[in-house]
Amino acid sequence: MMEFAGTPGTVTAFVLRLFQCFFAIASITYMVTTPNFYQVTAFSFLVASMGLQFVWSFGIACVDAYALAKKKIIQSRGLVGLFVVGDWVTATLSLAAASSSSAITVLSFSDLGGCRFGEECQKLQLAAGLAFLTWITIGISSLIMFWILAAG
Amino acid sequence: MMEFAGTPGTVTAFVLRLFQCFFAIASITYMVTTPNFYQVTAFSFLVASMGLQFVWSFGIACVDAYALAKKKIIQSRGLVGLFVVGDWVTATLSLAAASSSSAITVLSFSDLGGCRFGEECQKLQLAAGLAFLTWITIGISSLIMFWILAAG
Repeated sequence: MMEFAGTPGTVTAFVLRLFQCFFAIASITYMVTTPNFYQVTAFSFLVASMGLQFVWSFGIACVDAYALAKKKIIQSRGLVGLFVVGDWVTATLSLAAASSSSAITVLSFSDLGGCRFGEECQKLQLAAGLAFLTWITIGISSLIMFWILAAG
Repeated sequence: MMEFAGTPGTVTAFVLRLFQCFFAIASITYMVTTPNFYQVTAFSFLVASMGLQFVWSFGIACVDAYALAKKKIIQSRGLVGLFVVGDWVTATLSLAAASSSSAITVLSFSDLGGCRFGEECQKLQLAAGLAFLTWITIGISSLIMFWILAAG
């Protein structure tokens, strides 16, 4: 197995996971504090997807923290394979959720001539933006994991 | 360089590219035949994204057809690297476009209590569905390309 920045059990991998957790939970917070978000399927999907992302990233962050404490890199091919599948699934869902929410936000802001909900509008934009940041960080992790698995 | 189903210059790779072209152009066709689609940003984005996907997949299909005619597999690392970047960019845009359009479609069909545009509604759903099929086929190509590059 190759060993470079982002390999499970390195500081880079751990920091990437923390960023994913942070962005995901921030996105959920902004979304659930807008009243009636659950009436729009795309917004509910964002909350579900970011929730799953948080649980997954937090789990892997714990594994990384344990490996860091024990000072050993995770080299098991089976474990890296599992990380690849989980990362790709959550990354795909995160991008889909971010795009869907942005589409609805853009529809209400630009296409329908301006958002009319005051402070909530900013929250919706922030939630969608943070979902994109989550996707960027999980995307980086996924690519690194897939590279490690393929390069064997 | 490894050589398996999906490697540039094989029949599988060529067929995958043809499917991408077909789904992309079908999605564009359904979308542009609905009047006023350009008033919704997500639908315009779908047309732009599927257009880019078609151009890219058609270009690579030509390269594959040439390689098939000459009976040689494309092994150049530089060329495969270029394919990987193009595939990932277009795959990401396709998923984003498919999700955005679906979000708007779901909003008008379910959240707002039913689509009121008769025949157009079906076209919008079909365009979004075909964009997802485009994404699945380009996703498979991207994964194969990335694996070939990493396993190099």
